[in-house]
Amino acid sequence: MGSVNAISKPTPVNPRLSSLPGESFPVCIIGLGLIGGSLMRDLAAAGWPVFGWNRSAHTVKVANRSGFDVSGDLDATLRRAEAEKALVVLGVPMPALPRMLEAIAQHAPSVGFTDVTSVKAEVHELVEQHGLTDRFVGGHPMAGTANSGWDATMSGLFDGAVWVITYDNAKNRGQRGARLWLDTWRRTVQMAEAVGAAVVPTVARRHDSAVARISHLPHVLAEALAVTGDMGGPLSLTLAATSFRDGTRVAGTEPELVRAMCENNREALVKALDEALALLQKAREDIASPGQDLHRLATEGHAARMRFEARAGRKVKDAPRRPIIRVQPGAPGWTDQLSSAESMGAQIGIF
Amino acid sequence: MGSVNAISKPTPVNPRLSSLPGESFPVCIIGLGLIGGSLMRDLAAAGWPVFGWNRSAHTVKVANRSGFDVSGDLDATLRRAEAEKALVVLGVPMPALPRMLEAIAQHAPSVGFTDVTSVKAEVHELVEQHGLTDRFVGGHPMAGTANSGWDATMSGLFDGAVWVITYDNAKNRGQRGARLWLDTWRRTVQMAEAVGAAVVPTVARRHDSAVARISHLPHVLAEALAVTGDMGGPLSLTLAATSFRDGTRVAGTEPELVRAMCENNREALVKALDEALALLQKAREDIASPGQDLHRLATEGHAARMRFEARAGRKVKDAPRRPIIRVQPGAPGWTDQLSSAESMGAQIGIF
Repeated sequence: MGSVNAISKPTPVNPRLSSLPGESFPVCIIGLGLIGGSLMRDLAAAGWPVFGWNRSAHTVKVANRSGFDVSGDLDATLRRAEAEKALVVLGVPMPALPRMLEAIAQHAPSVGFTDVTSVKAEVHELVEQHGLTDRFVGGHPMAGTANSGWDATMSGLFDGAVWVITYDNAKNRGQRGARLWLDTWRRTVQMAEAVGAAVVPTVARRHDSAVARISHLPHVLAEALAVTGDMGGPLSLTLAATSFRDGTRVAGTEPELVRAMCENNREALVKALDEALALLQKAREDIASPGQDLHRLATEGHAARMRFEARAGRKVKDAPRRPIIRVQPGAPGWTDQLSSAESMGAQIGIF
Repeated sequence: MGSVNAISKPTPVNPRLSSLPGESFPVCIIGLGLIGGSLMRDLAAAGWPVFGWNRSAHTVKVANRSGFDVSGDLDATLRRAEAEKALVVLGVPMPALPRMLEAIAQHAPSVGFTDVTSVKAEVHELVEQHGLTDRFVGGHPMAGTANSGWDATMSGLFDGAVWVITYDNAKNRGQRGARLWLDTWRRTVQMAEAVGAAVVPTVARRHDSAVARISHLPHVLAEALAVTGDMGGPLSLTLAATSFRDGTRVAGTEPELVRAMCENNREALVKALDEALALLQKAREDIASPGQDLHRLATEGHAARMRFEARAGRKVKDAPRRPIIRVQPGAPGWTDQLSSAESMGAQIGIF
């Protein structure tokens, strides 16, 4: 009986954070890969009206068979988004974005939209070039697996994950733009919360700088470690144990994915890499000089890891330990609140 | 009934590899930390005659209470090893080795001995300086946890682990030295096999070069990554997910342990670090130049990780996939066999 009720009257996945429990709005997802497709699954499960488009006829067929409202006609899908005043979510990879922005400008001229790509400054620039800044909010759900495509989609992918939402366009909007943009921003937050994510606000460039440090740099270091270990030949690989295994794990990522994420964030990654190189050069000098020691690097690295551990693994559902700041979109001083939240790496909720 | 039999008639942990099933000999373990103490547990459990010494009176008391044959008198313990023709295992850390070598020269003048420290060239030099090369075989069980001391000891620590055994001293021994050294080498292998380890032969310098690449370099890179991520402030740590978590895991190791392992292997670590730095500098140039790409590093790193995965996780008990080469200590050409095994990173067994 309980399960019948659950089906007939869907409840939000994360009612504690949704500002308006039970309120939903239509969402149109363009591109149903791992992120877009998993988002569709979770929104549908939460009872939200959700429909979408995918390029592959096979995916359209498979998704339809599973009961999802998916079309292979991009223009018609966007016209429907416009008619139903849906929030459009761009789930396509970076190279496909320009074409999608053109289609949005043409077929969905008045609805807000967001994206899910892993860099944000370049996306904001593209959106600006297409004159769509008034109704765009950048997004980056920090979730994923090594797999991609509709077949890799899953329920619960975003539960407890951080979902970065940009606020670059919060200021200097015209009156019409202000209302539409604020509505888009609020809806993007509500949608992320509905699938259990923890919303963290940033501006695009600070997001890109952060992910360069904690996501792209780890990939570059892992590749270099894997190659250096391998250059030691079979003996090295036989002796390799957990420290090498952990340090090279992300070198198992498809090389083209590593290239795409690193090459889309060149400026920030060069800066992070230069900082790491300076530390490693210093370590090299210290190790080469018997009078020197590694005390400072080992101590600071250990302290940094401890700080990370103190913050990490904070799932929304099991821990209130990450600070949560409540903001009212558009209220006086609200962007200062977002800026405060950003500098603390804090989660936000809206009211 | 079966368990009574098992207790009254101990069988080797790893009979498949022991050349002479059931054969055991006295083992004297000097230093009962994580490695030495766990070795004592496993040998005792396998029914081997094993006794030892520890500096801490508390450890002696606790170990005795648990039924282990442990003394706090170093000289007497070594005299007993001499009288019982035991294999002596030095389980003390590097700084304590010189004193132990003096004690062995004085109180156990004719028995063979091995060690368990994580670098080998420096130990071989120390042994040479004490004139004990004729009866020394270097060892390095690639097993451990983040903890240390008798309280951290456990059963089964070596089961499936690689136990490196050096053969630097296999040649150019005098006739007396040859027999004693061969006997020490054979016993060291048998003891490692008795606790379930996979024996891999190397010469000391190649061991040190390999562990610099696959154990010490990962620590240095992890420290640098942790610091660089942390320099991004709270936002970076909030966005950090699995790639940062895995890449910095070993930065959680006690800084003094990291220092000790890196500073004891300076020469080999500088070489490994220089190779990694060259790869990272090239990556930095490629990322900074929009016309360049990361194709080569990403592809080679991925291939290296795949090769590691293809070899790794091969527990002795569940996989014959790591090549096993059978050698007869002292037979014509046997060091060539060891050299072949080393270049393949192969496991050996003796007959």
